[in-house]
Order: sequence, then structure tokens, then C-alpha cells
Amino acid sequence: MATMKPSIPKGTRDFSPEVVAKRNYIFDSIRSVFHKFGFQPIETPAMENLNTLTGKYGDEGDQLIFKILNSGDYLSKADPQKLLNSDSKKLTPEIAEKALRYDLTVPFARYVVMHQHEITFPFKRYQIQPVWRADRPQKGRYREFYQCDADVVGSDSLLNEAEFILIYDEVLSTLGLKDFTIRINNRKILSGLAGLTGKPDKMMDLTIAIDKLDKIGLEGVEKELLERGFTNTDIQTIRPFLQLGGTNPEKLEHLRNSLADSETGLQGIAELETVFSYLSRFGTRQAVVELDITLARGLNYYTGAILEVRSDEVKMGSLGGGGRYDDLTGMFGLKGLTGVGISFGADRIYDVMEELKLFPTRTALGTRLLITNFDKQAELYALDLLRQFRGKGVAVELYPAPVKLQKQFKYADARNIPYVLVIGDEEIKTGQLTLKNMKSGEQEKVTASDLIGVFLDQV
Amino acid sequence: MATMKPSIPKGTRDFSPEVVAKRNYIFDSIRSVFHKFGFQPIETPAMENLNTLTGKYGDEGDQLIFKILNSGDYLSKADPQKLLNSDSKKLTPEIAEKALRYDLTVPFARYVVMHQHEITFPFKRYQIQPVWRADRPQKGRYREFYQCDADVVGSDSLLNEAEFILIYDEVLSTLGLKDFTIRINNRKILSGLAGLTGKPDKMMDLTIAIDKLDKIGLEGVEKELLERGFTNTDIQTIRPFLQLGGTNPEKLEHLRNSLADSETGLQGIAELETVFSYLSRFGTRQAVVELDITLARGLNYYTGAILEVRSDEVKMGSLGGGGRYDDLTGMFGLKGLTGVGISFGADRIYDVMEELKLFPTRTALGTRLLITNFDKQAELYALDLLRQFRGKGVAVELYPAPVKLQKQFKYADARNIPYVLVIGDEEIKTGQLTLKNMKSGEQEKVTASDLIGVFLDQV
Repeated sequence: MATMKPSIPKGTRDFSPEVVAKRNYIFDSIRSVFHKFGFQPIETPAMENLNTLTGKYGDEGDQLIFKILNSGDYLSKADPQKLLNSDSKKLTPEIAEKALRYDLTVPFARYVVMHQHEITFPFKRYQIQPVWRADRPQKGRYREFYQCDADVVGSDSLLNEAEFILIYDEVLSTLGLKDFTIRINNRKILSGLAGLTGKPDKMMDLTIAIDKLDKIGLEGVEKELLERGFTNTDIQTIRPFLQLGGTNPEKLEHLRNSLADSETGLQGIAELETVFSYLSRFGTRQAVVELDITLARGLNYYTGAILEVRSDEVKMGSLGGGGRYDDLTGMFGLKGLTGVGISFGADRIYDVMEELKLFPTRTALGTRLLITNFDKQAELYALDLLRQFRGKGVAVELYPAPVKLQKQFKYADARNIPYVLVIGDEEIKTGQLTLKNMKSGEQEKVTASDLIGVFLDQV
Repeated sequence: MATMKPSIPKGTRDFSPEVVAKRNYIFDSIRSVFHKFGFQPIETPAMENLNTLTGKYGDEGDQLIFKILNSGDYLSKADPQKLLNSDSKKLTPEIAEKALRYDLTVPFARYVVMHQHEITFPFKRYQIQPVWRADRPQKGRYREFYQCDADVVGSDSLLNEAEFILIYDEVLSTLGLKDFTIRINNRKILSGLAGLTGKPDKMMDLTIAIDKLDKIGLEGVEKELLERGFTNTDIQTIRPFLQLGGTNPEKLEHLRNSLADSETGLQGIAELETVFSYLSRFGTRQAVVELDITLARGLNYYTGAILEVRSDEVKMGSLGGGGRYDDLTGMFGLKGLTGVGISFGADRIYDVMEELKLFPTRTALGTRLLITNFDKQAELYALDLLRQFRGKGVAVELYPAPVKLQKQFKYADARNIPYVLVIGDEEIKTGQLTLKNMKSGEQEKVTASDLIGVFLDQV
């Protein structure tokens, strides 16, 4: 058999140690803020039953779910007629009972329903796991990527919304982002607006059109509204909302007037005011929080607050988003459980941090010291040092073979190891070891006991 | 549509917050020791091209690989003849180009070959990721489970073998295990033994039979050896090896005599001696290291050292194993790269720790304090405390709604939150807040500033 040149499936990625370290830096920062706010991790299997997933993401979404072929002689159980017809779509459920999760929301809803009797509500969970989508790969879009979700279910308190804004603020500030805006809206305002036009049933059409404002501009949105059954008169009503300016209180004031006759609209305004009042008590670190009536976010299960965060320094789409939903678990038979959640887009955050050079130059977890391997005697000497260093928790390596020193230094350099300790005959005799700082190139003589002190100070 | 009662695929698991915390405790311990010994993490995609995986695990293994159905109209590209024949096995490669990884070894080999020009050798990598196998689920055997592998490739130094023994010792000691044995052998000794019988080509048969000693006993092994073409005379030669007793030096002495004519055998003995001499310099914390000639480990790519670790307190199969291989990457066209690696069985370690009650009662990451929510005024008061606590890095929650206090205490209890702070009218007036220790039931009066001191001391 000819050896094959190996490759990986398109849209997937290998992560090198440097990239894993950077990604973990992001995940760990998110995780640690989640913990500080009382969220706990759960994990669900990569595979779900196909019927758990189908019908939850629309027809287009269903096409993008990766299905897993049944094991064994899967064709023996398939309907021969469907085989003969070569109808892929109809055959799929017969030969694939399982699928890879498409997001973390549906598995979470499934989890809450299955484990409802073990869970204490309000349930504050987070989940950081990969998801898979058979999307056409392109720049920044992958077929395997991580989602980082946090949700509170079983509480309608708007404190949760405020805390999620604080979480965005704290995570991104901690990662070093300086200029970013958290936009907030409330579906009830969009609902009130649809009501104003006399077309409350067209709320989703309104939302979908407004959602495209960023991409197609006001004119494009108005064209789409016409296509979706709104009239020119309706557009006269809607336009001022899309052009609403001013401070948050000014916008709220304006909305209170325009939506005075809409009970739902007024409720949305009141909810926003409550969230803002919590925030004024907390204050944010870096984030600007902006009421944005045009923030719609396509996902149609949101029923209250909608959130989205973007960098103002780097043009990069949203770094995260979320909102409140009234009926997450209804699809699995558990009604009336309200919740609110957010998500971080780790890949985009990664790209922003790269562009702004925000990653620490060295992660704490790399090897701190390489001990060179000169000969058998020096190796024996080094073993004692290794033991002592590791006993103190210092990450240290002994080069495994007495190859040319130059090669050993090259290794330290490539691995980004900041110090190299040279041990030869002379060093063993005098006890004065040579320590080289790989960054500055400086060398100094140190004793073994001094050395351990040096590294402990820095760990 | 009737709502469905949700379930998950057999052999897969949901992990609750308590279980995730315990699992992460194990993974973090392993990770931190890997780092201390200079290993760096990589990650590979869950999906590999099917042809990367097939043929690497034997026919039986190939059957256990989960295949992923191609997206879109996958039947349109399939050979109609294979469809008509209903031949599942032949149809699979036509409708499934991708598969879920079956272990971390083959993806690692693929990674090394694909990235050989970016890698500095010796390459010390670790990888902690799930793998999937369509095995029949049973107690302790899952279809999705994590592997934790560390390998050094590009170095034939036996220092690596010694360090892997230290890693086993340190990880398991750190996790609280007290009595465990790391068994070591060398394939070259098994090879020498096969040579002694005049059947050097039957080394694998010998290995496979000896590997079953634990399960089928000496008599069973001898029966299997006969079936595999060894004679009664051969068995007279082999038996003393299987019954070899004494200390490690006594065993080595005995082997040196018995294998005096086998160059390969003597080389295996010399390698073991080198590893033992490294270990005598290092010393182990808890582990007993035992030379065990009957340790064979079925996997046929091992060529030198073989390692395995087991608990002596709990009967539980091996907690990890590994060995040296001479040609990991040959299957992808990169010849002559030697390596050595080990793996931890996280699920079994988890079970041992549960049985011995070794998990810490409280993980550091849970919420430390719940502030009760009495009314609007108390809530406002609490917001300031929240901000201050979190500013100091303390994980704290405010109950999101002013429900009955009893319910709030129940929440703290269920969530294992050790302290509850009660704030009512009286407390706000006097500034003397009521702090309840949920474990002891004791209550004390504290001021807000005292309180922060108390928690910082404990964090």
C-alpha cells in the first residue's frame, strides 16, 4: 500500500501548543468569571440522538447537522424502497440514528428536562464544548468550533440580564480589550413596534429585516420590509425607530412616548430601565452599554432582552450575544421554564486579541528551565536538580541526550524556554553552574541552591 | 407533533456540575504534572478523514469506528451497484468520508507528519481529548470517553521512560492514591524469550498468550501457547520466566543468565537496568516499580519498554499504560521516528478515587457565599457587596428574587455554598449583617468590611 499524505477534513483545525495555550488563556478567563458569578459547568455528549436535534434549527439548519452512520450492517434495517429511490434525505433517518451536536442550547434544554428532578432552580450552568456544522468553510467559519455558553433557567429576575452584561464586561476587560460596546434591546419593544403598524403577527418579519441593517443599510431594510408585507405607511412608522439617536435615557424617553399605547412595548421599556438601574449600581469596567433598537438577532426563541457585544477597535462582527427566552424546554415537554443566556465567540475573540497583540508573551505553563546534557556524569548531577526543582513545582527539563550544545540551545529557543543551565566538568567541580538568560543572552554563575530561589521567586 | 421524552445515545453520558468538577480535578492534576515535566498540549479535530483511521486498528477496530455521513445528497455520488447489493461495508467509504477519532495515537502520528517542519524534536506533547468507539457499552466501558496521552517522539533516551514512571507516580500520589504498582517490562525480553524457543517469528503469539496470564492463569496460557504452535519443550523453557520471582535486581540477574545467548534479550535487560538506575537517583513518592516479565500489553506496535500501572487498594484493571514504539509515523510515510508514550485511564481513576473517597469535599471553584434577597432595599444594599466581593475575586451570588428565605437557604444547601449572608431592614440599619455557616449552622454578626476579610483569607 502506498503511504498516504495525511490531511484533515476541510473546515477543521489542528492546534499547536502555542495556539492551545492562547485558546486556553481565553477559555480559562471566561471560566473563571463564570465561576465568580456562580455558574457551574456541565458537559453533554458530542453525539445526540438525531431526533433530539432535527426540527430545532429550521430546514437549513437540519441540512448542516453532521449525521453518524449506524454501526454494523446498517443497510439491513433500511427501507429497500428508499435505497432504490436513492433519496438521501429520506434514507438518512434509517441509517443514521445519531448526530453531532450543532449548538449547546438544544443539548442544554434536553439536559434540563432529563435531569429536572436533580436540578435546583434557578440553575446557573455554563458549558464550553465544541460543536459541529456542515457549513461551507470560509475565513473565520469552521466546521468544528467551540461555543462558550452560560444560562440561568428558572428565574425571571432582570438581575440576571445585568449580571450577564457584567460578565461580558469583566471577561473582555480581563483579556485586555479596551473599547467595546455591549448593545442591548428587548424583543418586547420590537413587538410593540410591530403592533404600532397594526401587524403584531409580523413581529418576526420585522425582526428579520431589521437584523440586516448592518449589512444592507436603511434603504435595504425598507425594501425588505415592503417585500415582507409592510406598507409605505408602516415604514413611515418604523423609520424613526431605526434612526433613534441620543443617550440611553433619551432613547427610553422617546420610546415611552412612541409606544405609549403598547402594553408589551411599555413592558419592554420598563425591563430595560430595571437592567440599567442595576448597572448604574454596579458600573462597568470598560464596556459602553448602549440601548440599540435595531439589535434584533435572528434567533426566534428570544422573548425579552437581547444582548450583543462588539469590539470598537477591530472590525470583527459580534464577539458574543444572547438574550431571554420564555420556553427553552417546551420542545421536550417541560413548559413554562424561563431563562436567559449568553455566548462567547472564542474564535473571534482570539482573532481580535491577535490583531491587538493582547496575548501574554509567555504563558505561565511553559518550561522555565532547560538543563543541558553534557555527558553521563553531568546527567547524573542534573537528575538531582530535576528532582529538587520539580519538588518545588518548577517546570524543568533535562535534554534527554548528550548531543551538541548548540542543538540543545536551539531546542530551548524553539520551545521558548527562558533559561538554560549549562553543566559541565568545571561546573560540577566548582558547584558554580552557568545560567543563560535566553532573551538577553546574559550568562551568570549560580549555585544550585541560589538557582532554585531564583525560579521560585518567579513562579 | 407529540413532544418526545428526551434521551441520549447509549454508551454516552451527561456530566453534572459535581461530576465535571471531579473530572476536572483529575484532568488538571494530570495536566499540571505534564507541564512540570515539559510536555505541551496539542489538540486535533474530532473528525479525521476516514482513510486516516482505517487499517490502523485491525479489522475489529475498523468496525468500531464511528463514520460520519457525507453532507448533502450523499447517495448521488455512491456506486449504484453497491447500493443495489445492500452491502453496508462496501458502501460505507462511498457515503462517509469522515469519522470520529478512535484514539489519540493515530491522530498524533498524523499531526507529527503533517507538521514535521514546524516541530522541534524531541517533541514532548500531551493531548487530553475525547475519543469514540462503537463498542458494546457495559459497566466502565463507554462509547465516548477521554484519553490523556503524553508522548516524546524523536528521542531514544531511556531518561524518557524513567520520567514517565515519575509522572505516573506524581499524578497518582497527588490524587491521593497510596498503594499502587507501576509494572515495567521490555518487548526485547519477550523477543529474546521467543528466540530461546527457536521461534523468534512467534514473538507476537508469545506476547498475546502471556498477556492473558491475569485472566486465564498459567495453565490457560500454556494451553494457548500449544494452540499457537509452541511445543511442550518450548513451554518448559518459557514457564520459569512466567514464574520468575524475587526483587528487581534478582530478576534481572536471573534473566541475564537465561538470556545470555540472546543479543536482543540482553539489550532489553540493559535498557531496564538503565531505567532502574535513573529511578534510583530520583526515587518515587508512593509507587512500587516492579519488573514484570509477564507484562505484555497486546498492542503490537511496542518495541521496547512496556509500562502499566494498577491500584493495589482497589481491584480495577490498569489505570494507565504505555511503551516505546520505533515506527509510529511510518504509516504516514515518515520513517525512523522513535517515541515513547503513556496514557491515563481517567474513568478508572475516577472510580478508584470515588471508592477510596479521595475527592476533596469542596472544589475551590464553587460559590463561596450566597447573599439573600429580602426586598428591593436589601437588594440594592447587596449589589454594592457583590461588586466588592467580586472585585476581590470571591465567587458570590445574590439570590435573584425576594422569595421565602427558606427557599433561598435550600438553594445554598443544594449548591453546596458554605456561607449565607442575611440582609434585612435591621441589618441595613445597624450595619451588622448575619452570616450563617451552612455546615455548622452557626450564625454570627459581621460588618461588610470584616466579611470581605474573612473570605479573602480563605480563597
